[in-house]
Amino acid sequence: MAKKPNSKAAAAARPANARASAAAGDDTEITALSLEPAQLSPEMRAYFAKCEEKLGFVPNVLTAYAFDNAKLAAFVAMYNDLMLAPSGLSKLDREMIAVAVSAQNRCYYCLVAHGAAVRQLSGDPVLGELMVMNYRAARLSKRERAMLDFAVKLTAEPWLIEEADREGLRREGLADRDIWDIAAVAGFFNMSNRVASATDMRPNSIYHGQAR
Amino acid sequence: MAKKPNSKAAAAARPANARASAAAGDDTEITALSLEPAQLSPEMRAYFAKCEEKLGFVPNVLTAYAFDNAKLAAFVAMYNDLMLAPSGLSKLDREMIAVAVSAQNRCYYCLVAHGAAVRQLSGDPVLGELMVMNYRAARLSKRERAMLDFAVKLTAEPWLIEEADREGLRREGLADRDIWDIAAVAGFFNMSNRVASATDMRPNSIYHGQAR
Amino acid sequence: MAKKPNSKAAAAARPANARASAAAGDDTEITALSLEPAQLSPEMRAYFAKCEEKLGFVPNVLTAYAFDNAKLAAFVAMYNDLMLAPSGLSKLDREMIAVAVSAQNRCYYCLVAHGAAVRQLSGDPVLGELMVMNYRAARLSKRERAMLDFAVKLTAEPWLIEEADREGLRREGLADRDIWDIAAVAGFFNMSNRVASATDMRPNSIYHGQAR
Amino acid sequence: MAKKPNSKAAAAARPANARASAAAGDDTEITALSLEPAQLSPEMRAYFAKCEEKLGFVPNVLTAYAFDNAKLAAFVAMYNDLMLAPSGLSKLDREMIAVAVSAQNRCYYCLVAHGAAVRQLSGDPVLGELMVMNYRAARLSKRERAMLDFAVKLTAEPWLIEEADREGLRREGLADRDIWDIAAVAGFFNMSNRVASATDMRPNSIYHGQAR
Amino acid sequence: MAKKPNSKAAAAARPANARASAAAGDDTEITALSLEPAQLSPEMRAYFAKCEEKLGFVPNVLTAYAFDNAKLAAFVAMYNDLMLAPSGLSKLDREMIAVAVSAQNRCYYCLVAHGAAVRQLSGDPVLGELMVMNYRAARLSKRERAMLDFAVKLTAEPWLIEEADREGLRREGLADRDIWDIAAVAGFFNMSNRVASATDMRPNSIYHGQAR
Amino acid sequence: MAKKPNSKAAAAARPANARASAAAGDDTEITALSLEPAQLSPEMRAYFAKCEEKLGFVPNVLTAYAFDNAKLAAFVAMYNDLMLAPSGLSKLDREMIAVAVSAQNRCYYCLVAHGAAVRQLSGDPVLGELMVMNYRAARLSKRERAMLDFAVKLTAEPWLIEEADREGLRREGLADRDIWDIAAVAGFFNMSNRVASATDMRPNSIYHGQAR
Repeated sequence: MAKKPNSKAAAAARPANARASAAAGDDTEITALSLEPAQLSPEMRAYFAKCEEKLGFVPNVLTAYAFDNAKLAAFVAMYNDLMLAPSGLSKLDREMIAVAVSAQNRCYYCLVAHGAAVRQLSGDPVLGELMVMNYRAARLSKRERAMLDFAVKLTAEPWLIEEADREGLRREGLADRDIWDIAAVAGFFNMSNRVASATDMRPNSIYHGQAR
Repeated sequence: MAKKPNSKAAAAARPANARASAAAGDDTEITALSLEPAQLSPEMRAYFAKCEEKLGFVPNVLTAYAFDNAKLAAFVAMYNDLMLAPSGLSKLDREMIAVAVSAQNRCYYCLVAHGAAVRQLSGDPVLGELMVMNYRAARLSKRERAMLDFAVKLTAEPWLIEEADREGLRREGLADRDIWDIAAVAGFFNMSNRVASATDMRPNSIYHGQAR
Repeated sequence: MAKKPNSKAAAAARPANARASAAAGDDTEITALSLEPAQLSPEMRAYFAKCEEKLGFVPNVLTAYAFDNAKLAAFVAMYNDLMLAPSGLSKLDREMIAVAVSAQNRCYYCLVAHGAAVRQLSGDPVLGELMVMNYRAARLSKRERAMLDFAVKLTAEPWLIEEADREGLRREGLADRDIWDIAAVAGFFNMSNRVASATDMRPNSIYHGQAR
Repeated sequence: MAKKPNSKAAAAARPANARASAAAGDDTEITALSLEPAQLSPEMRAYFAKCEEKLGFVPNVLTAYAFDNAKLAAFVAMYNDLMLAPSGLSKLDREMIAVAVSAQNRCYYCLVAHGAAVRQLSGDPVLGELMVMNYRAARLSKRERAMLDFAVKLTAEPWLIEEADREGLRREGLADRDIWDIAAVAGFFNMSNRVASATDMRPNSIYHGQAR
Repeated sequence: MAKKPNSKAAAAARPANARASAAAGDDTEITALSLEPAQLSPEMRAYFAKCEEKLGFVPNVLTAYAFDNAKLAAFVAMYNDLMLAPSGLSKLDREMIAVAVSAQNRCYYCLVAHGAAVRQLSGDPVLGELMVMNYRAARLSKRERAMLDFAVKLTAEPWLIEEADREGLRREGLADRDIWDIAAVAGFFNMSNRVASATDMRPNSIYHGQAR
Repeated sequence: MAKKPNSKAAAAARPANARASAAAGDDTEITALSLEPAQLSPEMRAYFAKCEEKLGFVPNVLTAYAFDNAKLAAFVAMYNDLMLAPSGLSKLDREMIAVAVSAQNRCYYCLVAHGAAVRQLSGDPVLGELMVMNYRAARLSKRERAMLDFAVKLTAEPWLIEEADREGLRREGLADRDIWDIAAVAGFFNMSNRVASATDMRPNSIYHGQAR
């Protein structure tokens, strides 16, 4: 049976003239823009320290915003409210929306970082792959499917969303507040996908192997 | 400041059997979602008061977010930083991006509110119309055109943005920090367009007549 | 008749270093093509005089066609039959179709000229904006909505129109003759949008302020 | 070598239970709309007689318009001016544009009728097929290719046409009057394609075998 | 009545300076790639001889693959199994799928070669034209329409195919084995269309006149 | 630092009421079609045995085709020739094309199976992710990038491929035979993607963890 190489073994097996890893440099050259790091506020420094402590690293998106303390703080406040605050949507629901939206927009940074989050929160590595590749191929509850269909339609053709779409969510038991949260999370990743794509933002290489 | 045109006069000229104004209700039923207003923080109450004082009204998007103080505060912080903080992009540049992006996404709320802003900031009513209808038909500087082309490509096909696109901006004298700001404003309206479309957000009717 | 707003007053309010109005030149350089005006027939001269008398100006599209009397006459005959002759569609219905089709095609000339017509015929400035921005956001009767959905589908994907689409119109009370008229008006603006876009046709600047 | 069946032989060879010809009824039920024929003017009756004399039949599009004499007359006047009047574009050029545009819009009526015209005017049956199937596969002069690229871009994405597109035509020796004619013919078929698709207009069956 | 020119007569009528036939060279320069013919196996030589005997010519696609015997043999084996082996789909069904898929992909080679096959197998020249131009305009049985709708959706947006699409086929009496065959034929032409387009493959000119 | 769970540990950590793994059933219900396994030929039985021996499993696509020995044999012959026979393209080149094409078509089966192959052949897990998510974000050689751009354009808009596209490949040193192979591999996966999507084909679950 095919043996799963761990990445060190794979590296050892690589011929001397092999190409460099596609992730080489991703942890050092985070975007294609030359922007000087700002002096961060105590709050932001504490937040970075908390990331190091809880995750083991500072997500590159935060380092990318760190050229301007006000922009970083605004991003962190909105992100944490959307993804972590109480909601009728579970944290996994929100991460599934993040990945399905990012797949529509083919955003490398967000697919890597939030694909890992889906794998971790669900304890199911394959669910993360499905969200990245084609969420329609996943075996989902009707509620989950309605939620993702709304988020992806809102991403691809926002001008076509109408009352019938909202009614479809309500029929699956989603309350108006849940609809807001679906829209807000889908909207947020439509923003982040574009900031990441515009700047060629690179994900921390550690994400790739997480929760496989 | 542009005076709100007399909608009663227009109504008087209308034949007796005319349809109701398409804006009827826009100032009272702001979204299609039933969400109870939250108790706002003193900061947010002060901000609403400042809007009333300076604009004569609270923009409906703020009222829409006011079901949750944290979400409102995060939105306001990010919006004000992006649109009003110092930048290599003028406020008019940023509003032109807002409208060109919103036109790509055919977002009624944002086209109305930010179309008015382009008219006001430029003192040129037609420029606002051009941004709404087809920015490619406007007589723009090469720098403005490059900026809008980047923002609209980033909106329509973010996965196609590459170094050559950033180089195109640099050739027109835009610095890397300006590129970030273009991306961030375009990204922000890709978010707001979707929150507005998902919730059928209605613009304050006063915008329509402003700065014509 | 709507009075042409005072562009001089607007200009006076503008700072000295302001950009030129985006409409500068629109009334003098009507298209991007160099075509010598033809000697017009008495009928066409009379028609231009009638425009001056009733509208206060000759619409630029007519001036654009005036390099060839036969082409101008054919255009005028077809236009006037379609938009003004008796039909089960009201004149406002026909102008709404014109604008919704022109929005799909993002045609600057037609959006400006026929957006003004919707504002004038409806006495409702906001209805004109909605047709330009996203007709799906307007509060329309079911009959109006079916009519515009058909016209826009016919514009975007004409190969997908089938009997079920015609049946949908009949269910809203539209007769077969009305279906022809919807198709003919939608078709006509699909033609005009392309002639205007191909030649960079500029709308008379007076339209912008009409019926606001 | 494979023998070309003539259509009578083919019919004879068909099994008794074969499907009816796909063109059955095309010469009697011309559109999906029930519209009573109008009393035609002497001019229009003479024009129909001239068609019978010169072509051997009245093109179905004319019969379709014959529910209303004014609409028929306007259509005939515009069509004949565009396709037959003096122009820097040859009649074959104009028919090639007609077919390339109709292929983009997948219009059955126009592809059949104008595909036959390309075959007849060129004396080259294969050129007609190429225009129907994919004009990019045809061996064309640079001038022809530029003309068709412009017409098809104008059909698919009219909002993207700009001065650079017109310059591309001028570089191939096309004068501004030729550019108008390309735009007008492309525009006209964008109209006709939609009237035909909206009404399920059926081409005279005789076209299929012409000039093969 | 318009006389059908035979192609010799048409050639005679052509002015001396006329363009060369669009099919000139199609039978000698089969693709845009320079690839040396391989030494073919006895089986493949026998197969080519059988083509000559039964069709009167070797289809150009086979000559195109003949630079490599293994590739040719694999192509022939798959093609013959798909198009000729027993199936719940008739040979005409399979050729209709071939043409509808090739129309979606605008593949000149496959539209010419398989359009001829639809004409021959159906004994109905017009059916071939309809498949090339817009299969939705053809009068088809519900089973045929469901089959083509599935094949064309699978071609244009394969990621959207789901159980509901398969259920739609089953409702028209198609068994699971038939569904496989529809998918396999549609898939095969999605491959062949791309090999042909990538190499500018030219169809044997004899196809054009077959079964008209 | 975040610890990489192995999948057993992750399963152990999953709450009792957790959703079933998204891959549950993928190894037993391979497609959505009910098709009885055929009696396989000795050659095909030997091939399956070789898969078991070398890979440790029979790829599900082969099991899916095993309802018909002739179809299976034809698929295997073409696949092995394309992906394993001598070529100017390395095996990794061919697998990169496979994944980039499958990403354009959002094919779950092929992304999983061939994403694993890219990881294994390159020894670089991240390269596989990049091909799945957005090949444009990968740091590739100019030759690799040209190859993938051609394959993806051929997938998305095959009708637009012309001599200039082939010239672009030749400029990067690709010979005409290489161009054929790029086209053939891209074409093959355009076929396989559609057979897989049409039948909801599920990849062997073992692929997910390979070569991470």
